[in-house]
Amino acid sequence: MSTESNIETTETDASTGTESNCGASDETTVDSTSKCGASTESESSSSSCGGSSESNEQEIGSTIADFDGDPGRLIAVGLGPGEPAGMTARARAALAESEHIVGYTTYVELLPDEITGGAEDIYSTPMCGEVSRTEEAIDRALAGNDVAIIGSGDPNVYALSGLALEILESKGATASMVDFDVIPGVPAAQSCGARLGAPLVNDTVSISLSDHLTPMEEIESRLHAVASEGFTIAIYNPWSRKRRENFEICCEILLAHRDPETPVGIVHGASREDEETLLTTLGELEALGEEAIIDMTTTILVGNDETYVWDDRMVTPRGYETKYEY
Amino acid sequence: MSTESNIETTETDASTGTESNCGASDETTVDSTSKCGASTESESSSSSCGGSSESNEQEIGSTIADFDGDPGRLIAVGLGPGEPAGMTARARAALAESEHIVGYTTYVELLPDEITGGAEDIYSTPMCGEVSRTEEAIDRALAGNDVAIIGSGDPNVYALSGLALEILESKGATASMVDFDVIPGVPAAQSCGARLGAPLVNDTVSISLSDHLTPMEEIESRLHAVASEGFTIAIYNPWSRKRRENFEICCEILLAHRDPETPVGIVHGASREDEETLLTTLGELEALGEEAIIDMTTTILVGNDETYVWDDRMVTPRGYETKYEY
Repeated sequence: MSTESNIETTETDASTGTESNCGASDETTVDSTSKCGASTESESSSSSCGGSSESNEQEIGSTIADFDGDPGRLIAVGLGPGEPAGMTARARAALAESEHIVGYTTYVELLPDEITGGAEDIYSTPMCGEVSRTEEAIDRALAGNDVAIIGSGDPNVYALSGLALEILESKGATASMVDFDVIPGVPAAQSCGARLGAPLVNDTVSISLSDHLTPMEEIESRLHAVASEGFTIAIYNPWSRKRRENFEICCEILLAHRDPETPVGIVHGASREDEETLLTTLGELEALGEEAIIDMTTTILVGNDETYVWDDRMVTPRGYETKYEY
Repeated sequence: MSTESNIETTETDASTGTESNCGASDETTVDSTSKCGASTESESSSSSCGGSSESNEQEIGSTIADFDGDPGRLIAVGLGPGEPAGMTARARAALAESEHIVGYTTYVELLPDEITGGAEDIYSTPMCGEVSRTEEAIDRALAGNDVAIIGSGDPNVYALSGLALEILESKGATASMVDFDVIPGVPAAQSCGARLGAPLVNDTVSISLSDHLTPMEEIESRLHAVASEGFTIAIYNPWSRKRRENFEICCEILLAHRDPETPVGIVHGASREDEETLLTTLGELEALGEEAIIDMTTTILVGNDETYVWDDRMVTPRGYETKYEY
């Protein structure tokens, strides 16, 4: 597998070099205070791409042969929109029972103490470290710990359930070996849809504008295919400074198929302190690309030909009005 | 608006005639024992399409002019997969605070007593009554009650948030008048995806095969559009006795664009007692249409060109393997 040299990859590789790898050690010999040590969420305030635990010199890239003893459990947990009340009871219980919790710093910090208080260790890294973070979680599980790897939304929506399985496979392990399980959460499209009313009640597509892992020509082709049909469209990862042209291209493709008056709902930072919601139109969307409301924490919901705005709500009819009198 | 004469419509119309309409009365004059009376879940065992509360002769089709006093609150609550542990804390709290809970009998029966125990009334109707049930919920809110209307999954995924807004509008009310709010839940695609591993981690479309509210030619056109692109596909409402040919057409369209070996995951009754999961291939799918595992409680997840099955898990790579070494 090749490692392309772009900014995101470089940042992640940088993080890989500084992350702890305590899971790969024989658990009984690990100094659990300094590496897999006590849970202190203040550890997660690290600002570099490194892990929040102290680094050591052990090699990354361990395989199943490096671990003795019985593996622990690995669960991928979706937190939903981010606020603790948006988590399911099942997710909450699973985290409370986990010995290690691994995640992106921002999400770890959203977890209340009563959920994380029982964990032996909380390991967090900043945004760019998802591959090394997931590998760390797997190493810890293979070393015998019960590990939860967390993310916002749902583990199946542009998230870590797939990466976890891919890395397990690359280590020569299996999903069964760590009793791998996925605990679903409310995806961003639904958290944001709820704030807008009923924008997504019919056939819907979710599409990410990040070309970090999917070539832009494929994204463009997908946008053309769905914009010409009656799908409502949930756009994830709409804008980043490094690829602002993807957003412009997306707006132009949508406008090639849909009326400029098509309603569009924008939700920034759903359930966060900086949450902001805006109802606009497809014709106005591109001009908002440089505004603060559109960034990587934003989800954009694009209506279909029947979507309308009424009383500050975005409504996509399901079709009942064609069959029922009310 | 016309009322087409088909079986589903007829059933629903039948239910309309037998549902109570206590919300439309001036609340102070309603006999709250017989109509908006005490909560007894056993009421919900009605087997006809009628409501579980006793019927009365009042006319359906009330408008805002029929209500005096201040309206209550109306929330559309997504329960997620059905088991209480799959609900968010926010959904649970909202139901516990609601004076009236309105929903499809099966979902009402899934709610534990500690959630419903505080409600003044629980009103449930069988499957075919969603329009009259939603109208009943709105009438109760307009009459001054705090009402929750519930459904499985998320209120924005083939569900009632849109219908609630449409009926509010038809009554001359507004969403603001009842402080309308939507509480999201985990959609079936994600509940089912979690059981299968990581089938949906990249761009995904959800599409319903029910042509009750969407013409079959539109469904076919949408299937063609997305099957020829790299979307994974979550199929809702895949099969019913009345329209078994939709499922056959769907399978044929998918096979026109994708390899017969494409992995397909089938989840029947997620989180219910009769839950069943099956991993198969696109080439085998059509033959399963007449089997018990595929019915209206089933969600079918169709992989893309890169999806594979490993250790009993269905994995759609996100693309990390093209950029990272692990």
